[in-house]
Amino acid sequence: MSDITRLACQALDAQDSLAPLRGQFSLPAGMLYLDGNSLGPLPSATAARVQAVVTGEWGQGLISSWNSAGWIDRPRLVGDKIARLIGAGPGEVVAVDSTSINLYKVLAVALALVREGAPGRRRIVSERDNFPTDLYIAESLARQHGCDLTLAGADEIEAQLDDSVAVLMLTQVNYRTGRLLDMAALTARAHAAGALAVWDLAHSAGALPVDLRGAGADFAVGCGYKYLNGGPGAPAFVWVHPRHAARMDAEARWQPLSGWMGHATPFDFTPGYQPGAGIGRFICGTPSAISLAALECGVDTLLAAEACGGLAALRRKSLALSDLFIALVEQRCAGHGLQVQTPREHARRGSQVSLYLDPADGDAYAMVQALIERGVIGDFRAPGILRFGLTPLYLGFAEVWDAVDHFAQVLASGQWREPRFSRRSRPSHRTTVT
Amino acid sequence: MSDITRLACQALDAQDSLAPLRGQFSLPAGMLYLDGNSLGPLPSATAARVQAVVTGEWGQGLISSWNSAGWIDRPRLVGDKIARLIGAGPGEVVAVDSTSINLYKVLAVALALVREGAPGRRRIVSERDNFPTDLYIAESLARQHGCDLTLAGADEIEAQLDDSVAVLMLTQVNYRTGRLLDMAALTARAHAAGALAVWDLAHSAGALPVDLRGAGADFAVGCGYKYLNGGPGAPAFVWVHPRHAARMDAEARWQPLSGWMGHATPFDFTPGYQPGAGIGRFICGTPSAISLAALECGVDTLLAAEACGGLAALRRKSLALSDLFIALVEQRCAGHGLQVQTPREHARRGSQVSLYLDPADGDAYAMVQALIERGVIGDFRAPGILRFGLTPLYLGFAEVWDAVDHFAQVLASGQWREPRFSRRSRPSHRTTVT
Repeated sequence: MSDITRLACQALDAQDSLAPLRGQFSLPAGMLYLDGNSLGPLPSATAARVQAVVTGEWGQGLISSWNSAGWIDRPRLVGDKIARLIGAGPGEVVAVDSTSINLYKVLAVALALVREGAPGRRRIVSERDNFPTDLYIAESLARQHGCDLTLAGADEIEAQLDDSVAVLMLTQVNYRTGRLLDMAALTARAHAAGALAVWDLAHSAGALPVDLRGAGADFAVGCGYKYLNGGPGAPAFVWVHPRHAARMDAEARWQPLSGWMGHATPFDFTPGYQPGAGIGRFICGTPSAISLAALECGVDTLLAAEACGGLAALRRKSLALSDLFIALVEQRCAGHGLQVQTPREHARRGSQVSLYLDPADGDAYAMVQALIERGVIGDFRAPGILRFGLTPLYLGFAEVWDAVDHFAQVLASGQWREPRFSRRSRPSHRTTVT
Repeated sequence: MSDITRLACQALDAQDSLAPLRGQFSLPAGMLYLDGNSLGPLPSATAARVQAVVTGEWGQGLISSWNSAGWIDRPRLVGDKIARLIGAGPGEVVAVDSTSINLYKVLAVALALVREGAPGRRRIVSERDNFPTDLYIAESLARQHGCDLTLAGADEIEAQLDDSVAVLMLTQVNYRTGRLLDMAALTARAHAAGALAVWDLAHSAGALPVDLRGAGADFAVGCGYKYLNGGPGAPAFVWVHPRHAARMDAEARWQPLSGWMGHATPFDFTPGYQPGAGIGRFICGTPSAISLAALECGVDTLLAAEACGGLAALRRKSLALSDLFIALVEQRCAGHGLQVQTPREHARRGSQVSLYLDPADGDAYAMVQALIERGVIGDFRAPGILRFGLTPLYLGFAEVWDAVDHFAQVLASGQWREPRFSRRSRPSHRTTVT
């Protein structure tokens, strides 16, 4: 294949009907931000909206804003917007708490639903390389329920599904490799084995079309601060398939974080807990009006794409961007031991590309640092993974070309070997939050 | 006693060394805000600080701000500031999640600590009129542990403490009545009975000097959006007495919401959970940088009082304000059936005054609405409670006089009987969040 030129990439940008969506973001001048899989950038609308909540709704409206500004309804309203991105219906999603906490809620309910009728099902199955917080939460519930947590490689998950399994808990797109799992097929296999399927959409909601209903999934949670652009530590979200609504009404299957905002009538202040209808019971404490306003602005940047093809169009562009990134890396960064870790097959790829470098062949950490110094923001995962998020909402083809151009220069010049890029010269590498 | 004049109140304001602290807040002109026990007002510093986090730290710094702007340390840093208000030491408090969720964490640990050695202790004791979310969370853990939740009137709590009790769980100041419990005495009684004491400081942190260490308490949680002025739905906080640190290291006593940010080394991304040292393990998911910045500004408004006598001085003024409020209500609002529900005794009073009106004698809801229309913001709790927060950081004596003057006018004129103030004319009374 002949070399891909920057001119050819500019031509792709000129034809890109999604390009105007970039205008929704305030990105630092000169920065090539390939880390939206870790923290989405600031939407242009967010600062003014947050300011209006702070100075107007809180400062002037004070306590009355729980009603007059709709604070009380915001978890459901933002949830309804997120629902449109993940193949869920209205009234099925709430935006609250963190991914970890929401996972605790749904995993507890899933275990109760399955194990009440089948106490012999004592296993939670997950991927060994799942994001750690998911595994930590599953560990806690496994201990509580006297269950085991079985961890398998991505290709060995199906083989684990038998009649000893209560719940299959997976993240749809792997945070390290960017590999996309087949939600529909794995959910069907879990159901065939008599288990329920819990999905973490942290790296897929807003990154690609997710179809929870179509896949027949049982429960889902996801993150607000990555592809949803909701801001650092934004509220997460939680979904339950409505087919479970009636069975969740039995007390033994209530979600355990039974805070007052999930009560059927919180403002009656009754001493006994009665869960609200459907997804409402997954709200726990008092929601943050400021954080939810920022999250809503972030979700709106994705809904704005509905006018130009929606998530399907974003997905096409995302794959085109990551195809381009892979092709350019292979053309221009060869000979340094870098391997493309993300699957080439579109059906198995999320919206990021991960490269792997054996630590014996070079210092991936230092390469990422050298890129960051040049304004190309990716991130590093031990022991040798370089992660690059290709987010179609705000990245163009020429930018991908420029990013790989920087990378080629860093490699060809050996710049990454400069001591200041080495981890040993840094007090900490706590740089990134997946 | 002769009538208290507005002039006398103005004289008190002129002598009030805490009066300049009012300048820290942006209160709507003409409003008399007596609802800081429900939602603290906006500090003047907050809007700019939040804006800096949004546009600078997030917008420009992006992912690097987890370190460069200190986002990752914020739960501990804000926790250390809150510690100064509640008689805790540095490194003992983190600001995270909601009160409900933090209560779930500590109550689970408390139950595990006690019941491992004494499985026969099967009771959680609390106050019947405790804020419902505390009772709902306790219900959930009681069900999980095969325990019972015993609810008693405030004066019958001690009588419940025997060798069948695992945990005494109380809120220091009652949200409805404003009654202050004796933390030291009740904790001592719990300990004498072999139980642990969990305290909710929702209506006391920032409202009066709290001395967790001095009282020998075991666990505490509290709210960020009331007297700490952290904004609607602000992060809450959690404290554990360090004497429990070592015993919490056994796996069976880990706090159950074991998210990655509570891990000993979260950025190693190891598959097995290992809790961080001490209070750090009570962090769960990724903290909200925006919400924590707002909370920090709120906490700073209280720390600013350290220059002029601190919480002890604030407490003196708070009691003087509520004494004045009670005296004025008795002088000017008599003859309408209103009873002062909050204890007269200073040692038993928080920083609010609650009045009670038998529904047969009049419509307390309508009275509150008529006051709100006049810019006097209190709130209502069924069936007949009128709550007024007397917060010394931003309220003066003449303002209390003016508030009661409005109340007297509402009562004398019968204005509250106008149909528009009746709850029947309103679609919802979800106005306030305790």
